[in-house]
Amino acid sequence: MRAAFLAASFALVAMPQAARADDHTSTASASADALPPLYAAELQLAKTFVDGMMADGVVVPQPKDPGGGYTHEQHKRNFRAIYLGGQLFQVTGEQRYRDYVRDMLLEYADLYPTLGDHPAKANQNVGRLFWQVLNDAMWLVHAVQGYGDIRDTLSDAERQRIDDDVFRPAVKFMSVDSEHTFNRIHNHATWATAGVGMTGYLLDDQDMVDIALLGSDKSGETGFLRQTELLFSPDGYYTEGPYYQRFALLPFMVFADAIERNEPERKIFEHRDGILLKALRTTVQQSYRGYFFPFNDAIRDKSLRTAELYDGVAIAYAQTRDPSLLSVADFQARTVLSKNGLMVASDLAAGKAEGFPFRSMLLSDGPDGSQGAVAVLRQGAGNAQGEPSSALIAKNTAQGMGHGHFDKLAWQFYDNGNEIVRDYGAARFLNIEAKAGGRYLPENTTWAKSSIAHNTLVVDERSHFDGEVEAASAVWPEQLYFSDQAGLQVSSAEISTAYDRVTIRRTLLMPDIPGLEAPLVLDLVRANSPDSHQYDLPLHYSGHIMEFDFAAKTNVAERPVLGEDSGYQHIWVDAVADEQDGKGALTWILDGRFYTYRFASDGPLGVILGESGANDPEFNLRREPLILLRADRQSGGTSFASLLEAHGKYDGAAEQTVSSRSRVADLSHDQIGKNDIVRLTLKSGQRFAIAVSHDPNPEQAHSVSLDGEEITWMGFTAVVALTGGEN
Amino acid sequence: MRAAFLAASFALVAMPQAARADDHTSTASASADALPPLYAAELQLAKTFVDGMMADGVVVPQPKDPGGGYTHEQHKRNFRAIYLGGQLFQVTGEQRYRDYVRDMLLEYADLYPTLGDHPAKANQNVGRLFWQVLNDAMWLVHAVQGYGDIRDTLSDAERQRIDDDVFRPAVKFMSVDSEHTFNRIHNHATWATAGVGMTGYLLDDQDMVDIALLGSDKSGETGFLRQTELLFSPDGYYTEGPYYQRFALLPFMVFADAIERNEPERKIFEHRDGILLKALRTTVQQSYRGYFFPFNDAIRDKSLRTAELYDGVAIAYAQTRDPSLLSVADFQARTVLSKNGLMVASDLAAGKAEGFPFRSMLLSDGPDGSQGAVAVLRQGAGNAQGEPSSALIAKNTAQGMGHGHFDKLAWQFYDNGNEIVRDYGAARFLNIEAKAGGRYLPENTTWAKSSIAHNTLVVDERSHFDGEVEAASAVWPEQLYFSDQAGLQVSSAEISTAYDRVTIRRTLLMPDIPGLEAPLVLDLVRANSPDSHQYDLPLHYSGHIMEFDFAAKTNVAERPVLGEDSGYQHIWVDAVADEQDGKGALTWILDGRFYTYRFASDGPLGVILGESGANDPEFNLRREPLILLRADRQSGGTSFASLLEAHGKYDGAAEQTVSSRSRVADLSHDQIGKNDIVRLTLKSGQRFAIAVSHDPNPEQAHSVSLDGEEITWMGFTAVVALTGGEN
Repeated sequence: MRAAFLAASFALVAMPQAARADDHTSTASASADALPPLYAAELQLAKTFVDGMMADGVVVPQPKDPGGGYTHEQHKRNFRAIYLGGQLFQVTGEQRYRDYVRDMLLEYADLYPTLGDHPAKANQNVGRLFWQVLNDAMWLVHAVQGYGDIRDTLSDAERQRIDDDVFRPAVKFMSVDSEHTFNRIHNHATWATAGVGMTGYLLDDQDMVDIALLGSDKSGETGFLRQTELLFSPDGYYTEGPYYQRFALLPFMVFADAIERNEPERKIFEHRDGILLKALRTTVQQSYRGYFFPFNDAIRDKSLRTAELYDGVAIAYAQTRDPSLLSVADFQARTVLSKNGLMVASDLAAGKAEGFPFRSMLLSDGPDGSQGAVAVLRQGAGNAQGEPSSALIAKNTAQGMGHGHFDKLAWQFYDNGNEIVRDYGAARFLNIEAKAGGRYLPENTTWAKSSIAHNTLVVDERSHFDGEVEAASAVWPEQLYFSDQAGLQVSSAEISTAYDRVTIRRTLLMPDIPGLEAPLVLDLVRANSPDSHQYDLPLHYSGHIMEFDFAAKTNVAERPVLGEDSGYQHIWVDAVADEQDGKGALTWILDGRFYTYRFASDGPLGVILGESGANDPEFNLRREPLILLRADRQSGGTSFASLLEAHGKYDGAAEQTVSSRSRVADLSHDQIGKNDIVRLTLKSGQRFAIAVSHDPNPEQAHSVSLDGEEITWMGFTAVVALTGGEN
Repeated sequence: MRAAFLAASFALVAMPQAARADDHTSTASASADALPPLYAAELQLAKTFVDGMMADGVVVPQPKDPGGGYTHEQHKRNFRAIYLGGQLFQVTGEQRYRDYVRDMLLEYADLYPTLGDHPAKANQNVGRLFWQVLNDAMWLVHAVQGYGDIRDTLSDAERQRIDDDVFRPAVKFMSVDSEHTFNRIHNHATWATAGVGMTGYLLDDQDMVDIALLGSDKSGETGFLRQTELLFSPDGYYTEGPYYQRFALLPFMVFADAIERNEPERKIFEHRDGILLKALRTTVQQSYRGYFFPFNDAIRDKSLRTAELYDGVAIAYAQTRDPSLLSVADFQARTVLSKNGLMVASDLAAGKAEGFPFRSMLLSDGPDGSQGAVAVLRQGAGNAQGEPSSALIAKNTAQGMGHGHFDKLAWQFYDNGNEIVRDYGAARFLNIEAKAGGRYLPENTTWAKSSIAHNTLVVDERSHFDGEVEAASAVWPEQLYFSDQAGLQVSSAEISTAYDRVTIRRTLLMPDIPGLEAPLVLDLVRANSPDSHQYDLPLHYSGHIMEFDFAAKTNVAERPVLGEDSGYQHIWVDAVADEQDGKGALTWILDGRFYTYRFASDGPLGVILGESGANDPEFNLRREPLILLRADRQSGGTSFASLLEAHGKYDGAAEQTVSSRSRVADLSHDQIGKNDIVRLTLKSGQRFAIAVSHDPNPEQAHSVSLDGEEITWMGFTAVVALTGGEN
């Protein structure tokens, strides 16, 4: 009985034409009980949404509002309803879904030819149904799929009207009127070419397909295929970063799936060594507890649970049967109503899922992988999904186009489920009308993109490349070294172009040190310059201050602002300290865990405790703490060595507190030749050196003498136990 | 087979003596598989903890450190180990647990007689093992239970030593040396009398039992029985508030359980109409999503998942078999290793749990219920546990002794899983040494207890009763009205003693209004005074500002402090506005939901947007936003009417935003005679009046004429639809 229902439901999906001729409501409803739970739930969600839309009738308003406004949201709802309505008709065979999609598209056939530029136009990339062409492209990508699900059942006259008054003019708008967008190497163009190409397959119009794949001039210099070559690195990293990678992935995967179905001989999923499937996995790798690393312009609440990835996971699973993709679908708790989605849901229900292999990895940037990289270092026991407890991200990428931030060599750090060392992401409240119509806020430029808003070195209170995208896009850091060796992971990178005549090298290590808890992060920043400079090293952390060991002058009754420009105008100064010995430590608590940031520089340090949110009359910024180390140095440059030490536990429910104070008594840093030697003295009296030669040859022995102690090690770096005595 | 194991495990618990004679390790281990899951897990937790302690050997350090310090935490661990070790011996019969508890107590027998006042003494209530006598009492309550589990198995010499050198001197310290604490009507005394009384039962010392039950002089004026009469109201509300109610409940329940076992003829659980069982349920009622309402001194991360309640729930379940207590245990995911705990775990596994009946209720304060009240209004669809989505708490209680805050008629509000209108709780980092040794911080007095830190009316920038506990403890508000009628719940209360010659009445309503989403809160505050005053009405909300409709002067580059004293010194001023019409609205977002606070006063209003955290050199305070309405009025007083409107949804994952803007166009407030009339005009054009007669008689008709409209209703309050026209 159950087997029969399952077979019937597969048949419904696989053979919609056959199912469609009769009213299959009762069969479909009965079979729904036998569908795998994820698919059955998805079907129910779609029905709830589309039935709700149908109850309101067909509503196709004259375009008027910007993002988040009524007409914007209604046209978004409409394309979802067309897309899902078509699928529901395919799955259930219910005529009413077909009729609704048809009637909706006929309304658009009345409206579309009358449209000019959208009245909420904000820049040159204006749309017709929406304020920007991107949203029109998204409309097209979804609507053409829904149309494809019903087109064969329409009368010739209906089909002709919708073809000629909706999809052909939409394609013309995308590819001719918006040619500039269409021929970019950019995610907006991916959406546009996907929409046009999929329309071409549906209308059997080879010209549309050709321009979609090869660009308006069919030269292959632009177009979808070229985008797959230029927008991803060989490691599947998308140049704008994970937030836009997720977003771009939908048209890449959905159009590729259409290409595979219509022209399997193109072997699109094998193109460039399987770049699209690699890109999908790389997207997942760039997440922690399901949330994407928020560097560059990014909305922080974007997770793997995002509509753009449901299709991608299902398509990739259909291509690969990789069981770890099932665990992604399981985390998403969503899929799609396609045959692919049914396969995902069935195999998930059959218990075939395996944990996704989150791991340390170096993701090169640039079409040929030579434009810097993102280093991801993961450590610690896995959670229920097998994901390690800590993750360090070193952002040594190229600029990433207009959505890139000025944050060369910046880092981020996650532990215990939380973002401990933060990236602000974008200053934007997506689709919230009261906040600049839901678009990027002015503070995205004045704060979120600025260097000081990131965990990177800032010279003379100016952003990297002085905040100029063009200059920033021409160059990139060099990833000098990467090691995922357990117990001593490393990323080291350098850039000499962010500032004139300043070379910055940052080496981040995650060492295991006996007597200290994990995770530990050692951060070595070295700036070389022949000139005098002010060097600022901010750390944007999450948590509440427990204690600090420097004598701070606190601004308790009137809070000044740190600077005038380049993001400094957005920082309130809570306290300042002057550390002549260049050393200090700050301890905070987050979510029951303590973190101590302990630092040493090569001369006197100013220490500033601050908070974001100054010069923000509209309350657009989040207010988040930071500590800033400031070194004023004559020629030669400076160095900062710091240790982030996770320790202890506060359990409010059990009223138990353990190890709320750092276990480290002292940290000192020396540079001897090319070697960095960081010596730690624990409160227990144990002493260790973390020695870094910066020499990648693992066979090379290194030795330095320091305060009468000989420290020897092999290769790039090592943790060396020192004797307790001072010699 | 399974039934046999279950029976065996019950026997182990019920007949420890019999089981103890042999080595039951293998039987116990086999039977553990058959134990109900919650009990088996508890057993494993206890073994893990005690085995870990045993691996370290017996460690009984000389008392030295304050809360959170090493010796403090070690003596806490020790009393847990004694308590659990005794239980493990009873359950498993393993000799090693008995030996460990014995050896530990013998160590204490060496140490205890040598002790004088603890060196970290902070006030007159100094302990011996701990910095305060309270912790010594907690040690005794736990240790005597563990001792009871092994005492019969000791040699006479061992028993004599432990009796004479640990428990008798501990009882003397509690009841004689600390007589002041022992004879208070206070939770510290509950712990002390419980420890002494339970020791009395164990040592068969009737004198100890008598002084525990009736006070040092055995008059019954103080002691445990009197505490059950004076510390709880007839509704089971504990006068210090839920945080201390939870804390006090453990000794109340555990000692009562001992009384019931030793002197069942006392019918202690029926005493005063079953007050102890009522108090347990009332404790649970004072929580939202498991977290206690944090008013008065309270650590905000205290939830039902707290050691103090595991015993209480098990004891109450054993007395009542109330299936809703099983769902509390299920939420806690913990129980105790007693026979009561086994019953809870078994019945839970048998599926007997029912949802806890969270509901709107009025909890009177004071021994006879006449000292004000806490009103809890709940509304909305229940979550999986059946708990409604919204809760409003009107705090119209007496002072609640030294841990009480100066917050007469304050309120709090929860919705969508979050605390939308906040109570700060205590300024304290429990047991974190770096923060004043884990004790209450200076800011607990200067900020957390102050009136301005609460959602209450503040007159002339002074706290209620000028912050004097004695004056505040002599009087209380009057609860004028309470209604839990669905769709129009009400709490109304008044106090005339918080300030000289000022009477404050606050009426909080949760009306359903067609065209608006739920929940809605209407807040009517009326102050009457013959004198000129400045009236400040703060709202401490949670969320990020989306927009406001008043022209604010923002302090974007230098942030001043609001005032000098009474908590005002801790408020940063972000923006100020001057609203001549006395009206305005502020919208914020929290966790995907929008909230608009819309207000109207009877004259010009100053509006201040601020944040806590000024004058806080040690970073002891959380930084949280507030809006403050300021009315300077000549004689007569003032009124504030405000509507808190929850609306819309922001779904970052789906990039969908709905109704991010308020649906209300205007709110106006009129007082006509004794009636308050609030008129709302929605953006849809719909108009409603919420009419409040303040007359509790439901049969009484009321009518007012306003701008040519006749508004009529029955009883205390009603929502009246008005016509669209303006007349």
